[in-house]
Amino acid sequence: MIYGAMLAGGSGTRVKNAPVPKQFIEIGGLPVIIHTLRNMLKCTRFDLIYIAAREDFIGYLTEQVEKNVSEPRRVRIIAGGKERMDSIHNVTVAIEADNGINEDDVIVIHDAVRPFVTEKILNDSIDAAAKFGACVCGLPCADTILHSVRGDVVDDIPTRSELFCGQAPDSFRLAHFIRMQEALTPEQRAVITGTSQICTMNGQPIHIIEGDAINFKITTDSDLLMVRTLLGDR
Amino acid sequence: MIYGAMLAGGSGTRVKNAPVPKQFIEIGGLPVIIHTLRNMLKCTRFDLIYIAAREDFIGYLTEQVEKNVSEPRRVRIIAGGKERMDSIHNVTVAIEADNGINEDDVIVIHDAVRPFVTEKILNDSIDAAAKFGACVCGLPCADTILHSVRGDVVDDIPTRSELFCGQAPDSFRLAHFIRMQEALTPEQRAVITGTSQICTMNGQPIHIIEGDAINFKITTDSDLLMVRTLLGDR
Repeated sequence: MIYGAMLAGGSGTRVKNAPVPKQFIEIGGLPVIIHTLRNMLKCTRFDLIYIAAREDFIGYLTEQVEKNVSEPRRVRIIAGGKERMDSIHNVTVAIEADNGINEDDVIVIHDAVRPFVTEKILNDSIDAAAKFGACVCGLPCADTILHSVRGDVVDDIPTRSELFCGQAPDSFRLAHFIRMQEALTPEQRAVITGTSQICTMNGQPIHIIEGDAINFKITTDSDLLMVRTLLGDR
Repeated sequence: MIYGAMLAGGSGTRVKNAPVPKQFIEIGGLPVIIHTLRNMLKCTRFDLIYIAAREDFIGYLTEQVEKNVSEPRRVRIIAGGKERMDSIHNVTVAIEADNGINEDDVIVIHDAVRPFVTEKILNDSIDAAAKFGACVCGLPCADTILHSVRGDVVDDIPTRSELFCGQAPDSFRLAHFIRMQEALTPEQRAVITGTSQICTMNGQPIHIIEGDAINFKITTDSDLLMVRTLLGDR
């Protein structure tokens, strides 16, 4: 089985003046997460897409999915956890309860706030996860990246051609992912900021697939403006 | 004296379907570089702003500056060089010929394709260059950065809180900058990709000042769309 997982538990404090978390901001009459979900569902290889959401948004989200998605039966909404890793754990537990775990299952973990993920990225990600066990989506860095431990003086400038901006999705063979998840120490779990780190913390390789500038993440007000523009809602 | 320097020699191959380099694309009736220049001129501390441009655009640019900038006498247009470092060298040679070099001169080197640079950034950059000798403008990285020498498998994921996306301007005490420029070997000069590297190659410290998301660089078509949107030209 091929599973999608979307984490919609964030509170999105960097978008100002928004009354709701950024994944629920409505653009063109639909919350951002529904735009993302519609694009994920275009990839027919997904058997089920799990959404881990904040409990107070589950009712609203269920209604939105029923009303605005062509195949709501391919979508399951569950309660997210406190941190990103807790939400992912809730998804893998739900998958196991629903269908059991098979050695060739793949999980594609995407951000609700990257609405323009392409079918090419989703297909490449599924293929690379099946072949290599784990993959991330990365775009060559356009900017010079400065390394500074204290944040006031540059310690070094890493070679730009060796750096990639990590996008989502991160995809894994599901059984491999669950084994790595279980092997994390509480200390590792506390500091992890992205699912790809589960591999580096376990000493496991991660393949890179090619990202796309359009697969950007809504982080700031100007990103939101860009989404409105691209969706013709201005 | 406080000098601005703008490098407008690039050919900008990542913006597709553009008949001219991206710094000359017209938005709201004005080329991008004039928008950038107008924002730089808002900072009254600049005595002179030098623009190093491709020779085939000098006539057009001169006309644009005369027509569309309030204080054209604060602007000097000179021929850029083959590479970024050659253009900067041409600027420092022109400054020396025009005014000589004084120990407390500061040079603020900006990108023509970052039109929305703020007065705060320009002021902070001038102050930090005067105080510390050299500074870059950096924004904490919002994305996970992946390090991969070969580009296919992740080698490591550097700690995100220690990484900053370098923006422009890079600013320097001018005499310090010229000494570092002269100390570069031809090999160093050939591989340098940003002016801040002139410090790391010379083993000299660089201070970081705080950037701003609005000070983004026009790299892709979607960046260009963003500029059009922000300038109301759609």
